[in-house]
Amino acid sequence: MQFFKEWEGFEPGNWSNDEVDVRDFIQKNFTLYEGDDSFLEGPTKATEKLWEQIMDLTKKEREAGGVLKADTIVPSTLISHKAGYLNKELETIVGIQTDEPFKRSLQPFGGIKMAESALKMYGYEIDPKTKEIFTKYRKTHNDGVYDAYTPEMLLARKSHILTGLPDTYGRGRIIGDYRRVALYGVDYLIQQKEFDKSLLAGAMDPEKIRDREELSEQIRALKNLKVMAAEYGFDISRPAGTAKEAIQWLYFAYLGAIKEQNGAAMSIGRTSTFLDIYIERDMQKGILTEKQAQEYIDHFIMKLRIVKFMRVKEYNELFSGDPTWVTESIGGVGIDGRPLVTKTSFRVLHTLINLGPAPEPNLTVLWSKQLPKSFKRFCAKISIETSAIQYESDDLMRPDMGDDYTIACCVSSMRVGKDMQFFGARANLAKCLLYAINGGKDEIHLDKATGKPLQVSPQFEGIQGEDALKYEEVIAKYEQMMEWLAELYVNTLNVIHYMHDKYSYEALEMALHDTEVRRFFATGIAGLSCATDSLSAIKYAKVYPIRNEHGIVVDFKTVGDYPKYGNNDDRVDDIAVWLVKTFMNKIRKHKPYRNSIASMSVLTITSNVVYGKNTGNTPDGRRMGEPLAPGANPMHGRDSHGAVASLESVAKLPFAYAKDGISNTFSVTKGSLGK
Amino acid sequence: MQFFKEWEGFEPGNWSNDEVDVRDFIQKNFTLYEGDDSFLEGPTKATEKLWEQIMDLTKKEREAGGVLKADTIVPSTLISHKAGYLNKELETIVGIQTDEPFKRSLQPFGGIKMAESALKMYGYEIDPKTKEIFTKYRKTHNDGVYDAYTPEMLLARKSHILTGLPDTYGRGRIIGDYRRVALYGVDYLIQQKEFDKSLLAGAMDPEKIRDREELSEQIRALKNLKVMAAEYGFDISRPAGTAKEAIQWLYFAYLGAIKEQNGAAMSIGRTSTFLDIYIERDMQKGILTEKQAQEYIDHFIMKLRIVKFMRVKEYNELFSGDPTWVTESIGGVGIDGRPLVTKTSFRVLHTLINLGPAPEPNLTVLWSKQLPKSFKRFCAKISIETSAIQYESDDLMRPDMGDDYTIACCVSSMRVGKDMQFFGARANLAKCLLYAINGGKDEIHLDKATGKPLQVSPQFEGIQGEDALKYEEVIAKYEQMMEWLAELYVNTLNVIHYMHDKYSYEALEMALHDTEVRRFFATGIAGLSCATDSLSAIKYAKVYPIRNEHGIVVDFKTVGDYPKYGNNDDRVDDIAVWLVKTFMNKIRKHKPYRNSIASMSVLTITSNVVYGKNTGNTPDGRRMGEPLAPGANPMHGRDSHGAVASLESVAKLPFAYAKDGISNTFSVTKGSLGK
Repeated sequence: MQFFKEWEGFEPGNWSNDEVDVRDFIQKNFTLYEGDDSFLEGPTKATEKLWEQIMDLTKKEREAGGVLKADTIVPSTLISHKAGYLNKELETIVGIQTDEPFKRSLQPFGGIKMAESALKMYGYEIDPKTKEIFTKYRKTHNDGVYDAYTPEMLLARKSHILTGLPDTYGRGRIIGDYRRVALYGVDYLIQQKEFDKSLLAGAMDPEKIRDREELSEQIRALKNLKVMAAEYGFDISRPAGTAKEAIQWLYFAYLGAIKEQNGAAMSIGRTSTFLDIYIERDMQKGILTEKQAQEYIDHFIMKLRIVKFMRVKEYNELFSGDPTWVTESIGGVGIDGRPLVTKTSFRVLHTLINLGPAPEPNLTVLWSKQLPKSFKRFCAKISIETSAIQYESDDLMRPDMGDDYTIACCVSSMRVGKDMQFFGARANLAKCLLYAINGGKDEIHLDKATGKPLQVSPQFEGIQGEDALKYEEVIAKYEQMMEWLAELYVNTLNVIHYMHDKYSYEALEMALHDTEVRRFFATGIAGLSCATDSLSAIKYAKVYPIRNEHGIVVDFKTVGDYPKYGNNDDRVDDIAVWLVKTFMNKIRKHKPYRNSIASMSVLTITSNVVYGKNTGNTPDGRRMGEPLAPGANPMHGRDSHGAVASLESVAKLPFAYAKDGISNTFSVTKGSLGK
Repeated sequence: MQFFKEWEGFEPGNWSNDEVDVRDFIQKNFTLYEGDDSFLEGPTKATEKLWEQIMDLTKKEREAGGVLKADTIVPSTLISHKAGYLNKELETIVGIQTDEPFKRSLQPFGGIKMAESALKMYGYEIDPKTKEIFTKYRKTHNDGVYDAYTPEMLLARKSHILTGLPDTYGRGRIIGDYRRVALYGVDYLIQQKEFDKSLLAGAMDPEKIRDREELSEQIRALKNLKVMAAEYGFDISRPAGTAKEAIQWLYFAYLGAIKEQNGAAMSIGRTSTFLDIYIERDMQKGILTEKQAQEYIDHFIMKLRIVKFMRVKEYNELFSGDPTWVTESIGGVGIDGRPLVTKTSFRVLHTLINLGPAPEPNLTVLWSKQLPKSFKRFCAKISIETSAIQYESDDLMRPDMGDDYTIACCVSSMRVGKDMQFFGARANLAKCLLYAINGGKDEIHLDKATGKPLQVSPQFEGIQGEDALKYEEVIAKYEQMMEWLAELYVNTLNVIHYMHDKYSYEALEMALHDTEVRRFFATGIAGLSCATDSLSAIKYAKVYPIRNEHGIVVDFKTVGDYPKYGNNDDRVDDIAVWLVKTFMNKIRKHKPYRNSIASMSVLTITSNVVYGKNTGNTPDGRRMGEPLAPGANPMHGRDSHGAVASLESVAKLPFAYAKDGISNTFSVTKGSLGK
């Protein structure tokens, strides 16, 4: 393989030896920085001016009701729009989603009805011709899903025992290795994909045919990416030759992804230490100053801040706002012990000062005890000033994921360009407990045809009589109901991801993955602490069922006290552990789509509110409609022994059964750490 | 199940007992007719006038260069066009493919390039918006195929060792049971398909998800069929109540199929005896005269005669003309011994007199020794007068196929509504023999890059030296080359049919099949007699290879005589038998798409000319470019012992290895039957 002239000054390695290996490039070339933040520069005039412009547009957008402009005609593809600029003279990193800043793109491949509703919600009308195309000729992901859903799946969705399923919106959670475009240039990546395609020979079964077609789509996407960049005047067929080019190439790759997909989380990866290598080289060459470097990073981050999608109100409710989850993972430690902290780790966090705090991009520090002290201090300082950094435990994830993983959305870890995820939303285990008690009859919804309670699961036998609930009996019925729910859940996700691949395939993002990618089948649970406390109440106190006129248990009278999750009390924490293990094992019984690896998360950070709305009164005393606790949090106010005890409870949950992540969100206030 | 009021007067049976069973309906209700043709009526004034109009339009079409009008904008779907008429006042059976007679429809789902070229060929320009839709947003069958083809498949296609593959045109050969619409009405068929969909429960693997989606598409197509009929003022949700309605309902179903698909053969099935039941009932009720009945049939057949598609010149060359293969199968004998001949068998053939002879619809008599004498006599009479009847051996096919099969295209037999076929065009066995001799280097095509002979197969060792070819050596190399070809052939067809299902699924036609359909994987061979005679020459005479400057054997010098296929001489006929068995067994080694059943045909009726053009000189003395013999025919002029001996040779070919059909076409002239 040729050693590209753009690579001069880099230490060669496996990465330059006919293999796509960005991690190796980083390991061979990055410069650990253990100093402090005194080298950092403030914003340039251009940065300030551009940011003012963005602030102004943001104000106008707010005044316009949330959306400033929207494309109602042209479906967004890599090459659908002419080049657009904030201010061509001042921008050092160019490229926006459409031809005008803050003009939202039209993304109908996930579902035309959703695209149309989103427009309507903000007073726009979809072009009838475009609607016709995606109704008569081009089927969408959403239409495909509904063609294959079973009546049971529709019921489970309607009753919200399965909630937030990515069947009307893009699944997201797939992160292209956007760095590859900078390091290798697009032509080499095409060549590699052509080679991979040549390996898919032999007997042509449906899997192989699909894989060959997907590779063709990936190659087409890479070619279109070049066209998109050329529209802005850049030839990205070759590797990036400077720091500015590296940032620009990388951003173009990401821009292509968000032009192609309106995914639930469009994270950017782990880019800062990679980019630092280019910045260091340019500085050593004397062609780049700190001021300029910071300006490029500021402009890059600015672009990530203005990523926007057209979404419906329900989506925003589910996710509490309109998050794009442009997560950038910073820091962490290499498996050889060297922290992956560089000056650009500082520069990226410093954008929170230069541009002011913002929730996006979701700057996430991969935290380790081994991080340099100065960097830890800097993080603490920025956190205090801006409250805008997310932290994840690198020490927990590194053994499994190595040192080139990144975070998709808020928690899911994946090796960049090597893992992808089939996002699976959540099964509501609190509601499932109520179903166990009521034999699968919904505690809220009535069957419209009969006026009787809606039978969602098969007609299992519920709890009979008015006596206090017996723990063993409830557990047996709960296991049976979870058995049903887990199978239905896997089947439902199988339908969704089959159709997403068929009608809304992430060709560019997957082009920036290894062809032999590892796939996670990311299931999730909601209502863990609510279900746990409810079981604890049944076990340790007396819980009497209260029935409505249909005989459905709609409330509970609880007599006596019982241990509550979140207080480091094994009596109840063991129930939570049992729940996580049991449900995950039931998931594992079924075959997930595309030989993916089943994983689970306990991490509803915002959607717990919506899930709670659709869950009746629970034996732990929670009232119908009240939020479930987020993620693996204890129910609100019940962790009476302080944050440490609460964290201890959460820490007991077995990570091996919930590798997609366990969240525990809390604010540190006076007294919250306990006495 | 309700006994529909439209069924009054019919003998009930399994068909009316909540099962779709048209065969049972026919068996329980048809009236065998053993009389002569004296009951038949001539054309009505309306028929004559309509036919004149068609003749006039046909003349205008010819004058216009082959196409009178063409839709360049609206992709053809069941509901794409308003109602169109020849003459609304005179037509008793209504419905045409677009809104005007002789206006060809635009069918881009198989391939937009093909649709565009076909239009261009006749001086039309495709609407740029439509082209954009099928380029940017809606992928076609053709694009899908090319995304998955391997370089080897492209080479085999280019060199024509595989020829006529349905990768740029609709595969056709699928025959809906159009009678079902008449007998049951569409609502009942929808209900049955909904039921079938409910059976596809359990684990959602890709096959089941695909099947559920396909059923949804089928149901949608049935609903659209109702909309299409309503456009003409008919409510086909209920069963047909009269003979006129039965013909109309059945024709609507067929019309839906040809609006949806431009298939290589769009056969209509086995409808005459079915329709006769309705005609008999109406006549017994006294609400229908023979004159009217014949008029309905004449108008029905007239509609089948004006079925037209937009096709490119190459297609017409391959198929020698622009055949639609609207095959109607007539007669045959029931498994209980009763011939399935009715008055309507006569009426349908009588259209060849009333309207004059025509190649379409392809009226095919399922011939049996047991057919009534008067019917045989009538067939002979019509054949002599019109030369427009095709005959197939019912006695040969009935044991395998029962008594409700029909013919797709010219030979392929399938049980109506129970079997379908993945059409597979042909592998050229004569060319394969040349490849065996030349180690897979093409005898005609050069590699454009190197100017050397094109290597199509792997570089197998060819025949070395100038000595006379040794039979055993040639056979060994031929087996190896067939091994390669058979595997490549199956893989290529797997790609084609996967993509056809994905991008150009025959939703309506499949809606008129049982959900649990039997699928045939219909491979075919060309050049049987040429290859056989070539091997015979090598075995029994001396064949010296003649090489060109590249060392490629491009000609042969044959010294001595040898037995030739087609003379009832076992020495050579055994070679043909060996060839058929050997190639079929090699096909059987590989897994065909969708668990279909591999079958083979020896039935190139017209395309043998094109195949011959791409095959070099062969050891039997045939010159480069000369046609191969059609089907299983002996090479032209070599069957020197008369037609009977020739037929005896063909009859030795093992039907079990070529169940998709073996053809032997010849004209009976004085002396052709031998001395």
